[in-house]
Amino acid sequence: MTFQDPAVDLDVTAQTISRAIAERDLTGLARQLGTLDLSQILDIGGRLEDRQRAVMFRLLPKDRALEVFERLDPALQRELVHDLQGGEVAELFAALEPDDRVWLLDELPAALATRLLRGLPDHERALTASVLGYPQHSVGRRMSPAYVSARPEHTAGQTLERVRARIDDAETIYTIPVLDATRHLVGIISLRDVLRAESSTALEQLMVDPHSALATEDAELAARRCAELRMPALPVVDAEQRLVGILTLDDAVRILEREEDEDSARQGGVEPLRRPYLATPVRSLVRSRIVWLLVLAVGATLTVQVLDAFEATLEQVTVLALFVPLLIGTGGNTGNQAATTVTRALALGDVGPRDVLRVLARELRVGLLMGLLLGVLGAVIAGLLYSPGIGLVIGLTLVGICAVAATIGGVMPLVARAVRVDPAVFSNPFISTFVDATGLVVYFVIARAVLGI
Amino acid sequence: MTFQDPAVDLDVTAQTISRAIAERDLTGLARQLGTLDLSQILDIGGRLEDRQRAVMFRLLPKDRALEVFERLDPALQRELVHDLQGGEVAELFAALEPDDRVWLLDELPAALATRLLRGLPDHERALTASVLGYPQHSVGRRMSPAYVSARPEHTAGQTLERVRARIDDAETIYTIPVLDATRHLVGIISLRDVLRAESSTALEQLMVDPHSALATEDAELAARRCAELRMPALPVVDAEQRLVGILTLDDAVRILEREEDEDSARQGGVEPLRRPYLATPVRSLVRSRIVWLLVLAVGATLTVQVLDAFEATLEQVTVLALFVPLLIGTGGNTGNQAATTVTRALALGDVGPRDVLRVLARELRVGLLMGLLLGVLGAVIAGLLYSPGIGLVIGLTLVGICAVAATIGGVMPLVARAVRVDPAVFSNPFISTFVDATGLVVYFVIARAVLGI
Repeated sequence: MTFQDPAVDLDVTAQTISRAIAERDLTGLARQLGTLDLSQILDIGGRLEDRQRAVMFRLLPKDRALEVFERLDPALQRELVHDLQGGEVAELFAALEPDDRVWLLDELPAALATRLLRGLPDHERALTASVLGYPQHSVGRRMSPAYVSARPEHTAGQTLERVRARIDDAETIYTIPVLDATRHLVGIISLRDVLRAESSTALEQLMVDPHSALATEDAELAARRCAELRMPALPVVDAEQRLVGILTLDDAVRILEREEDEDSARQGGVEPLRRPYLATPVRSLVRSRIVWLLVLAVGATLTVQVLDAFEATLEQVTVLALFVPLLIGTGGNTGNQAATTVTRALALGDVGPRDVLRVLARELRVGLLMGLLLGVLGAVIAGLLYSPGIGLVIGLTLVGICAVAATIGGVMPLVARAVRVDPAVFSNPFISTFVDATGLVVYFVIARAVLGI
Repeated sequence: MTFQDPAVDLDVTAQTISRAIAERDLTGLARQLGTLDLSQILDIGGRLEDRQRAVMFRLLPKDRALEVFERLDPALQRELVHDLQGGEVAELFAALEPDDRVWLLDELPAALATRLLRGLPDHERALTASVLGYPQHSVGRRMSPAYVSARPEHTAGQTLERVRARIDDAETIYTIPVLDATRHLVGIISLRDVLRAESSTALEQLMVDPHSALATEDAELAARRCAELRMPALPVVDAEQRLVGILTLDDAVRILEREEDEDSARQGGVEPLRRPYLATPVRSLVRSRIVWLLVLAVGATLTVQVLDAFEATLEQVTVLALFVPLLIGTGGNTGNQAATTVTRALALGDVGPRDVLRVLARELRVGLLMGLLLGVLGAVIAGLLYSPGIGLVIGLTLVGICAVAATIGGVMPLVARAVRVDPAVFSNPFISTFVDATGLVVYFVIARAVLGI
């Protein structure tokens, strides 16, 4: 089975475009851009440098430009805003949906954000402000305040008219929250069910119990629920169950993608780039990594101290040094495995900090089982190649290290969550470093006891 | 800012439910289940053991049971099918959408899959077979063949009638592919634009250029495009551009979530669980990890061999052993950072195998820069604590290791993709192990040269 590789063509097109920009062949460029579809333009935009992207963006027809802008990562939007002129920016900004506007505002310097907000028409500014009022990372800040709602006593026919009347203002018309006289959310109905029903049927006979998210709830949790329930949109309510907005599935996807970007990056000890790799300057790549690398290197000096403390033992039995990378590597891997599994389970909401004892008990058993398997193998091989004593030391150490590493690796993400730190931060490289030092202590304590030194 | 923690209540409810099942208090249980909403039932289902889940499932009202079943992970669906009776399974199976059926069929033993398919009504079997005909991992296998299409000459009013007539058969009615007389995809129109238009306007004046996916294209790529374009659904066509199905955004999300599950797991050296952590038996956890751990441990014996080859050097200058974990740890971390960034960029389609030289050049520069920063620091500290010679060795080794590790870590995922292996497989633990051995060689070669041994 072979899949087509659209990347090949794109790469060539990106090169042609960046050459045309360098040669200032702007009419040729505009003509070429006209032949590309939205998804190609987005992909190529991700391969250009900031200034080239701004030139390309300017040459797009106005509608297309807005479509592209809406779909860019907020970090790229920020760069673009930087490279465009004030008037162009204000126009783009006014054309965005209120929730997209807030994504962008979160990226911009405060002075520019204020200026842009001030330039908005009153109605749009009020909508945007209602979203901006919710805390960072809450679903309130990611919802759209532009929805179509209905009342339980409305008929299906009336509702359809209502939808038609507000069709240009609403972010989605496919999910319609049903509100009572005091704006409390009492039900939800899909446009599909509205179309399916007799036009004289009242919504109270058609609507279903609403799932909803609390506006102050964590945006990731709400987005995941929206995706898990496979709902096209999730109503967002305040503490009194009054409707304040709606989270559409495509916004939920955007939230989840960004969270997964962060999780995946942090698990590898990197800060998320939040922009395409090839569009990221080398200095930004270094910046996204150097702090973590330094922190981890400082943490690793612990291993130097542990080895220093056991230097006498090392001098007596140099052969012990040969196994250091293998043993701590295995410990690190075991810890990473446990941490990866538990971090993902946390992100999916399958476990929480309250499950810490259950996770501990499971990971201890998993670690012991794997340690026994590896330990027997290691003891036999090292015993044959070096000496029975060394074999015993290696075997016992593997059991100990795997048990300790799996337990630490499994519990660490839960502890992180409990103290409200991103669990992925405490993850793989961090755990490796921590487990390295612990593993060395286990190793030398066992070696001293078994070899009688 | 505090978020509510719904997990606390869920945990208590899950415990009550599993107690009620153990005590066979089934009426009490059914009553309690009646008070829970869909998302709560799903969460609790993820905390029960297989048999308990089957009991809970049986007590749900029929409609609710189908809703729950549709949203379970395919692996959990398989367990449930195992625990239910033949008649119950056949009924559930017939009620699923064709594409959901294929997700499940991919999980089931062939004999059971054949039997279930044979039990379907003719029409449903034909729909399912059309999806089953596409290769594994292709978007054809994940699309729905149940769509509403229209013709360019249809008016908006006619289209609305058409949608109403087929409203119960189609997976989505919100995106309507427009086909010519020979079923070629010529445009796409949203239900929103149909409702917005004058009822006498022909679709050819309303429809927009269609984005589409080729049925044999990789499902992940198509799903990511659907999400990136923020489209509620993406038409799926054959090589002649004839419509064969439609990929809805919620199915795209499901595909992406599963891919991200796999990537995140493999980056940690674990096979994906594909079921909630607490619902996974310890033996399955061990199974998902032990093979990788063994492979990595075997790979790590390379480090024993390298150290064995330099044992004479080690015996002469035991202090060199003290830095081994720190140096290889830093190498591993640098490699992981590069691999994480590039693997994610690959998954997002930001880079491809063709970019290998560009990635190599960037990562080499990143590695050298970070190596220089760490190297100077390391040289000064080690020089002060031990000796200027040792300091120089540590400094130079850090530069070398970081450069090598970043380059290997960055290039490896691209090589994996080029040979059609999951890039995440070649990722963190694998790269650590590989970089460990390389790093040790760099270390001892530099040490011998500088210290003149």
